[in-house]
Amino acid sequence: MNTSPKKAVILLSGGLDAAPGRARANSQGSACHALSFRYGQRHSIELEASRRVAAALGVVEHKTAEIDLRLFGGSALTADIDVPKHLTGANISKNIPITYVPARNTIFLSFALAYAETLNCYDIFIGVNALDYSGYPDCRPEYIAAFEKMANLATAAGVENRGHFAIHTPLIQMSKAEIISKGLELGVDYGLTLSCYDPSEDGKPCGLCDSCRLRQKGFSENGLVDPAL
Amino acid sequence: MNTSPKKAVILLSGGLDAAPGRARANSQGSACHALSFRYGQRHSIELEASRRVAAALGVVEHKTAEIDLRLFGGSALTADIDVPKHLTGANISKNIPITYVPARNTIFLSFALAYAETLNCYDIFIGVNALDYSGYPDCRPEYIAAFEKMANLATAAGVENRGHFAIHTPLIQMSKAEIISKGLELGVDYGLTLSCYDPSEDGKPCGLCDSCRLRQKGFSENGLVDPAL
Repeated sequence: MNTSPKKAVILLSGGLDAAPGRARANSQGSACHALSFRYGQRHSIELEASRRVAAALGVVEHKTAEIDLRLFGGSALTADIDVPKHLTGANISKNIPITYVPARNTIFLSFALAYAETLNCYDIFIGVNALDYSGYPDCRPEYIAAFEKMANLATAAGVENRGHFAIHTPLIQMSKAEIISKGLELGVDYGLTLSCYDPSEDGKPCGLCDSCRLRQKGFSENGLVDPAL
Repeated sequence: MNTSPKKAVILLSGGLDAAPGRARANSQGSACHALSFRYGQRHSIELEASRRVAAALGVVEHKTAEIDLRLFGGSALTADIDVPKHLTGANISKNIPITYVPARNTIFLSFALAYAETLNCYDIFIGVNALDYSGYPDCRPEYIAAFEKMANLATAAGVENRGHFAIHTPLIQMSKAEIISKGLELGVDYGLTLSCYDPSEDGKPCGLCDSCRLRQKGFSENGLVDPAL
């Protein structure tokens, strides 16, 4: 049932990590189908960045799913809770921070799985990172492995052995500096991206949230200034 | 972090199977939080049935998530594909039928997981059934077990050992006749429910689709006439 060319579904935020994952899939010769989410996020302006990145890198199609996780809240990204800006350091907080969105990557990957199954596609890319990151549980390799196993039991395509769904995480063990370096090598224009959790209305990063700090650290370690600033 | 009374999140369709699951959770003394989906389903009138069932059985709250799986299609329930009506027999088709919606239960359970985590709740109920059913892969015990494992790796609450998420499937090994019998025992009014995949605009079941046939079989084996007819 697989059709050529090889296809990939890419979860595409507007941030730092999605673009090189996309570029990596492209470099493997896959036709990329990008999926983004308007999920009630405080920083929904990232969707403009995701459209810029999708256009710049070239995708077969780019779908945006409308799901409103403010229905549940429980996060500084989806409820009326301030985004923390007082933290410093590499792996910024020891506890999982309030910017964690309950089950978000599980929801995102579930939609990606639905999309992939309808395309007869078995390769799903997500730009999670478990090194310079905020400690989110759904960015770790053991979580991704468990999702992949579940995905192959969940689907008609998996059960009928039409293919094996693989969740690809090309950045999971890279530092932010390595991600940026690899992205530049693959032609990613980081000026198009937006990582901030709490940007201004016109899309300027706050420079102080976890996501901004991790991004700055990555550029700094490459001896570069973030072109999005 | 668990608060009393004990809470449960119940996936509540308008159909035959959700109501007794709900009643079962209730009989265990949990405060029930019901979750339904407007997912672009052909039979979205089932949401009226889910509201009737929720009201009749009593829930603490009933949320409906708006997610449109017509974005991906690939099913007779979410795309312009006819619902099959020519099949007969117990486990009606040997192959997974076209009414299978790619990754639907994975998406539903992912939202339930998000909801549960924000409630500090660890018990999720879903009315899947792997005996008199249409052969959907995401109704089988091995799938549910894999989802449960993944859920505890996905979430802050799981990783921080605040509780263990359990996916409860009280009906999974029951026949439709047993489900109906158990539901009646627990006080379910099946006149409020709607199982049909292709109902008329005023909510009358077609009587011919898989879901209608399995339901009729269940009532017939109890020597009953379906009160929703």
